[in-house]
Amino acid sequence: MSTPFPAPGSKADVEEGLVLAPRFDADGLVTCVVTDATSGDVLMVAHMNAEALSKTIATGEAHYYSRSRKKLWKKGEESGHVQTVTELRVDCDQDAILLKVQVAASGASCHTGRVSCFYRKASALGGNSGSATLEFVDAGRAFDPAKVYKS
Amino acid sequence: MSTPFPAPGSKADVEEGLVLAPRFDADGLVTCVVTDATSGDVLMVAHMNAEALSKTIATGEAHYYSRSRKKLWKKGEESGHVQTVTELRVDCDQDAILLKVQVAASGASCHTGRVSCFYRKASALGGNSGSATLEFVDAGRAFDPAKVYKS
Repeated sequence: MSTPFPAPGSKADVEEGLVLAPRFDADGLVTCVVTDATSGDVLMVAHMNAEALSKTIATGEAHYYSRSRKKLWKKGEESGHVQTVTELRVDCDQDAILLKVQVAASGASCHTGRVSCFYRKASALGGNSGSATLEFVDAGRAFDPAKVYKS
Repeated sequence: MSTPFPAPGSKADVEEGLVLAPRFDADGLVTCVVTDATSGDVLMVAHMNAEALSKTIATGEAHYYSRSRKKLWKKGEESGHVQTVTELRVDCDQDAILLKVQVAASGASCHTGRVSCFYRKASALGGNSGSATLEFVDAGRAFDPAKVYKS
């Protein structure tokens, strides 16, 4: 697919300009952070190629590129948990995208069935060896992945 | 530097376990999303290698790995805008980190002087060509980068 995005211009254009000209990496991807439009909580981190970004803008529904499956992926195409985008932002150097979304159905965005992929935190910070054990901040599941995903 | 993190185990260990065992990419990096601990706003996206992650856990202050400068980077070492980490989370497949931080001094995290790197949004979504123009959501600057960064 041809990309509708212009090539990035000067540093000033990229950082202060009003044209979306994403700086895709060597694999053709930008990082995408997804937050809940209501709570502001970070739901997930995914990647977009030019096609995924363009389809997200054109449809207002989140599309990503799966690095493991090597294909375009409309969020919710299998699970029903479609993400409707209420706002799309780009960062200073245009290599990261921020989506604010409303999630359909159960409200979950993680394939494990949780609302957010970030359901565990480090138990302690500071004054230790630099490693960490984890604890759950959200052990509950909004859906049963075995019933939602066939594959 | 030797890493204090164990190698990732089974899918169940990675997704449901209580050991932080990050899945670093081919370049030895994980993606890190940084939010303001008070407002919840997304401030920036950066990358961490094992050393940056370990130092962040050990000190409670955010350290990153600069891909452009190819070096460990303590946030605020030049600007004074140190980020104190109040919570560190990991995502389901342990290839992304979420930091909730309090920012010292001006409260800004973007090198352009803004509070957040995500200071522009797409003007419209849906029903268009898939490209986008941008508008500023935060044109103000909390500091003057020319006065803060010498290089």
